[in-house]
Amino acid sequence: MSSLSCLVTTEELARVFSDHSVLSAMLAFEAALASAQARLGMIPQSAADAIVRAAVVEDFDAAVIAREARQSASLAIPLVEALTARVRASDDAASRFVHWGSTSQDVIDSALMLVLQRAQPILAADHARLAESLRALSNAHAGTLMIARTLLQPAVPITFGYKVAVWYAAIQRSWRRLSDAFGEAVRLQFGGAAGTLAAYGDRGPALAAEVAREIGLPPCGPPWHTQRDRLAAFVAGCGIYVAALGKMAHDVALLMQAEVGEVAEPGGGSSAMPGKRNPSGCATVLAAATRMPGLVSAYLTGMIQEHERAAGGWQAEWQILPDVVQTTGSALAAAAGAIGGLTVFPDRMRANLNVPDPDLGSAEAFRQQLLDE
Amino acid sequence: MSSLSCLVTTEELARVFSDHSVLSAMLAFEAALASAQARLGMIPQSAADAIVRAAVVEDFDAAVIAREARQSASLAIPLVEALTARVRASDDAASRFVHWGSTSQDVIDSALMLVLQRAQPILAADHARLAESLRALSNAHAGTLMIARTLLQPAVPITFGYKVAVWYAAIQRSWRRLSDAFGEAVRLQFGGAAGTLAAYGDRGPALAAEVAREIGLPPCGPPWHTQRDRLAAFVAGCGIYVAALGKMAHDVALLMQAEVGEVAEPGGGSSAMPGKRNPSGCATVLAAATRMPGLVSAYLTGMIQEHERAAGGWQAEWQILPDVVQTTGSALAAAAGAIGGLTVFPDRMRANLNVPDPDLGSAEAFRQQLLDE
Amino acid sequence: MSSLSCLVTTEELARVFSDHSVLSAMLAFEAALASAQARLGMIPQSAADAIVRAAVVEDFDAAVIAREARQSASLAIPLVEALTARVRASDDAASRFVHWGSTSQDVIDSALMLVLQRAQPILAADHARLAESLRALSNAHAGTLMIARTLLQPAVPITFGYKVAVWYAAIQRSWRRLSDAFGEAVRLQFGGAAGTLAAYGDRGPALAAEVAREIGLPPCGPPWHTQRDRLAAFVAGCGIYVAALGKMAHDVALLMQAEVGEVAEPGGGSSAMPGKRNPSGCATVLAAATRMPGLVSAYLTGMIQEHERAAGGWQAEWQILPDVVQTTGSALAAAAGAIGGLTVFPDRMRANLNVPDPDLGSAEAFRQQLLDE
Amino acid sequence: MSSLSCLVTTEELARVFSDHSVLSAMLAFEAALASAQARLGMIPQSAADAIVRAAVVEDFDAAVIAREARQSASLAIPLVEALTARVRASDDAASRFVHWGSTSQDVIDSALMLVLQRAQPILAADHARLAESLRALSNAHAGTLMIARTLLQPAVPITFGYKVAVWYAAIQRSWRRLSDAFGEAVRLQFGGAAGTLAAYGDRGPALAAEVAREIGLPPCGPPWHTQRDRLAAFVAGCGIYVAALGKMAHDVALLMQAEVGEVAEPGGGSSAMPGKRNPSGCATVLAAATRMPGLVSAYLTGMIQEHERAAGGWQAEWQILPDVVQTTGSALAAAAGAIGGLTVFPDRMRANLNVPDPDLGSAEAFRQQLLDE
Repeated sequence: MSSLSCLVTTEELARVFSDHSVLSAMLAFEAALASAQARLGMIPQSAADAIVRAAVVEDFDAAVIAREARQSASLAIPLVEALTARVRASDDAASRFVHWGSTSQDVIDSALMLVLQRAQPILAADHARLAESLRALSNAHAGTLMIARTLLQPAVPITFGYKVAVWYAAIQRSWRRLSDAFGEAVRLQFGGAAGTLAAYGDRGPALAAEVAREIGLPPCGPPWHTQRDRLAAFVAGCGIYVAALGKMAHDVALLMQAEVGEVAEPGGGSSAMPGKRNPSGCATVLAAATRMPGLVSAYLTGMIQEHERAAGGWQAEWQILPDVVQTTGSALAAAAGAIGGLTVFPDRMRANLNVPDPDLGSAEAFRQQLLDE
Repeated sequence: MSSLSCLVTTEELARVFSDHSVLSAMLAFEAALASAQARLGMIPQSAADAIVRAAVVEDFDAAVIAREARQSASLAIPLVEALTARVRASDDAASRFVHWGSTSQDVIDSALMLVLQRAQPILAADHARLAESLRALSNAHAGTLMIARTLLQPAVPITFGYKVAVWYAAIQRSWRRLSDAFGEAVRLQFGGAAGTLAAYGDRGPALAAEVAREIGLPPCGPPWHTQRDRLAAFVAGCGIYVAALGKMAHDVALLMQAEVGEVAEPGGGSSAMPGKRNPSGCATVLAAATRMPGLVSAYLTGMIQEHERAAGGWQAEWQILPDVVQTTGSALAAAAGAIGGLTVFPDRMRANLNVPDPDLGSAEAFRQQLLDE
Repeated sequence: MSSLSCLVTTEELARVFSDHSVLSAMLAFEAALASAQARLGMIPQSAADAIVRAAVVEDFDAAVIAREARQSASLAIPLVEALTARVRASDDAASRFVHWGSTSQDVIDSALMLVLQRAQPILAADHARLAESLRALSNAHAGTLMIARTLLQPAVPITFGYKVAVWYAAIQRSWRRLSDAFGEAVRLQFGGAAGTLAAYGDRGPALAAEVAREIGLPPCGPPWHTQRDRLAAFVAGCGIYVAALGKMAHDVALLMQAEVGEVAEPGGGSSAMPGKRNPSGCATVLAAATRMPGLVSAYLTGMIQEHERAAGGWQAEWQILPDVVQTTGSALAAAAGAIGGLTVFPDRMRANLNVPDPDLGSAEAFRQQLLDE
Repeated sequence: MSSLSCLVTTEELARVFSDHSVLSAMLAFEAALASAQARLGMIPQSAADAIVRAAVVEDFDAAVIAREARQSASLAIPLVEALTARVRASDDAASRFVHWGSTSQDVIDSALMLVLQRAQPILAADHARLAESLRALSNAHAGTLMIARTLLQPAVPITFGYKVAVWYAAIQRSWRRLSDAFGEAVRLQFGGAAGTLAAYGDRGPALAAEVAREIGLPPCGPPWHTQRDRLAAFVAGCGIYVAALGKMAHDVALLMQAEVGEVAEPGGGSSAMPGKRNPSGCATVLAAATRMPGLVSAYLTGMIQEHERAAGGWQAEWQILPDVVQTTGSALAAAAGAIGGLTVFPDRMRANLNVPDPDLGSAEAFRQQLLDE
């Protein structure tokens, strides 16, 4: 996380996607592979022990690995070499069992899945906080009258509680979709050189199950090296979720205009005008919403992956996936902060409404239905 | 459909999205609205009859409506005016009940949903044809040995049946995702000026149910004017599906290279070299896969819709949605044609493999699992 | 142009990109090729005459050609076949000189360039109209005080004339960039099967020059079959230009909010609320600005074209390029209409400013500089 | 730069966009502002001296600033506060002159421009290296016969020297376009709260000129806070340039297929199959080409910036611009490595050609013209 990109992540998520976290996940895969192979009698237990002992992230130099990775276009190759060298130093015989029968894509994809798995509860907690704030806000303002606006012009009366419930329902539906896609996508990757687990004879599937158990990821079934539709559904789910947040943030920023004055988010100040209060949380959400469609688009473009391993499309994902999750998380944290600290000005809403005897139709009935989504 | 864009649709889908089809769907909404209102006693039956009689697409001039629509940025306004004028000509009293209590977005969104509903079985039939071809191809080549390729370089042996099953499973999963999203997204839009059905007092929901039944769309629950997440999931589903087709088409085009020569699709000729056989079906799929990510991205961008009706984001969808469905359909038809007519050259596969005693690991086990997806 | 997509073009541009226009441009290429070849003594003059006589667009059936084009993934193949058949009917010997030595990409790209050339003056006229309106508006309001707004919050005083000049300068710069790119991109395509003009021995370049003169396109130098950077610069230029229009349209729509009330564009009405005045022109511009980034992105994606003719990337352009130009033209026409008919409310500007003794710094000096861009 | 994203930058560019580099550029702006103001007699020289003394990047904690920046959605606010506190500690009177009359956008945009300026020679050097390799390669193989391929099928003969010249010309043109856009875009940002430099009376432009001289950036003319067309042209220029690299990389990867075997790039190995040689450089270029269209698209989307400072669109650029430049640089470095170390196999080219008496038409004439671009 460089300073300039500090707005597109959170501290927690930056840790999850740090060098330390990613390399430790890759090492966790290599350790789990060796342990599982020993348990199934494929390699000596002493070799597995030596590999597990060597797979300690603090002993690896991320900068060196990154430099070499640029030569091979693969993080796995230098990491496996460094791990092999470390094992060899302590147990020469064990070193030939490092990464045995596996392939770069197994370790990189599985590590990425582990990292996504760590990100999930962070997003879930922020979403729960946001959803709770929205429900409370909607209930508190079930009777607060305001004007609806179409094409940015005044239309007919609604309540602020109804407006919030419309935000809530879309965000809630989008979360559920994202969350389901997360659950479907996060799983072990394990296929060997071309997806057939050929190095393991007919024991591939048993080993795959054992590795999954060991590392704590759902089992994978057949490998998915060049078929990324499950991850694409997750990425698209993030894109839709952030768009739902962005729609709300845009509404809040519009309602916060001085001339409208119906709500105010906690916001931030200005370096030029100290007294000014800006919709800073909304701006962070909208910055994320500006960037997400391009990220989703890049992910879809990268799905045209050649044969049994891509030359470009897969490698592009290593940047896209962490960016997608952190951008989503930054938007979510900012939205939760803005809504959690929102001030509402019912008097201004009433004044802007300017309708003596408002007819609300089914606003309240719909509000209640929306909160049930 | 202009000649230049003839590759991005099919004849059937071009008809579904034609002027005639869209205007007739809009008129169907107005007729259903009036009929439902008469049934609930909200307007006189004679007025509904006059409206239904006037709502005949052949009597409307699409070019005139389109020209006026550019002034108001809405197809609904000139159409409703033209319908009102026609009703007035036959029954002056009835004319004030045209479109009564409804809004542009109700008629445009509902018409679009009707049109999508008509497109669904066309896509489903082509998908079924493609899926069937893939299953048959995989079974026929369960024992056909070939080389797997990673980063476009030879790796280890697989079977062509396994390769096809990998294509199949991703396309099948993506279809199911798309199909579910279709089912969730296609529904009536009905909210009146700002989503509260205020013109109908407390009878809005009852009327909405009646209109849905009359027009043959699933009921909508609360309106979704500025919350497009369900349609976005459908659009993303199309993007992922086309990417799965594109991955397969890319593989086929690569296998069809003269130097590889392992398969040939029926293809097309060349205007310069009469004997040449080109992967034309694959090119059509890949052209679609080139365009889809930008369409998905545009849809996501348009989701930041202001308050209760957008000024720009919604209007952008009128072009994006028909484009998405037709592009998907053109890719699907081309893929079904290419796979349905695919010639396989097992001898070339064997020659390119160049491995005396190939070890296939779990290829066959995985193949069978993949065909069950 | 279907009704649903009527907002993404104009009547004039829809004609330029119609079937009739595109097919006539393709036939113009075939006629120019034959005429030039006859002039250089490569084919008999009588053959050229027969080809020119047959190349009459009214005699070709666009629907039939489109249907066959979907088989070969090329409009050129069925068109050349139909033209050959027509020539053969009148002059059997001449028929073998149709399209002689040329290739699909020569005729399709050149026809597309002819069509773009026809679109250029339409865009230029609308831009000139818009630029003139903006200059006049800025000059008329050089002294009209208003509040600047940052992050949608009131900041410090400016003049409306300054604000308009900021819009103007960006639109003017973007037009110049687009216009330069247009001039660089529009040129003949002429390379034969693989760009070497091999069919013409060493007389290829002379023939290319003659064809260019005949058809009225700038000469091409070496062919650019799979190198689309000049067109990409044009497409990106359109994207930037529409974004500059979109920024202005967004500002206008924001200033037109009832609570702000500082300007009003002519706009359109509402089907639900007859008295309502909507920023319809702005909505059309913003719909275009929502779609353009995805179109630019798709064009860039399609640039990864294989070897000497692409399988997908080129074919994708046939939809993207007409869409880009028409979307740009629709945004431009809507912007010119909105600005040309803009009403300004200086009293509301003054009231919203609420600063007793405004300090304008260099606003007027900058305004004059900006109008010089 | 995290390990996972190591492929999307280079070591040199990662340094240019590091926390240290960005914060030092921001501090350089504040120091230049104070120095210029003192020189013009606007603030005491002693205050400027105190500010310059305090503006030492090593004394600032990037992590703390980033954390606070997430509250205000602005890096400038916490940095200016921290700088003010440091100045106050040494010279209380001077502290009120920190950032005097300026605004967040002035410091952030100007710092970003300084950073881009530092990146320019890095890209230029790699481009020069690549261009030189391509020219040499084309000249060395002016007579090396090979087959052209259209839609991935064999077409007619060309030379490898011609093919390389086609790559070269597009890359060269695209570099020139990018380079011109770079030169036009990189300039000071200086406008104060809303672009009028109101805090400086009529001396704003003189101060702007002095700040530009002091900091070493071209002067800016009127501020460009919400008009980003020049930067957009640069971003699009990067997108087109990377696409031109991607087209070449795709061709190289295709020519390197074992069944084609016409070239080999130095490449990298495989963690599963030690003897395998992968097109790793090409994969890095293609990964960049997969991601760039989405970045360009996001930049264009962010251009719809509200009034005199955006709430979202501008903030999105802080991530996009560094990403664009580093992605371009990583593609360029990989392309230069792949082409610089390319092995060519003329015998395989001749064997794949399989034409007894090839007619090359104007291939050599065009080759020479292309090398002149």
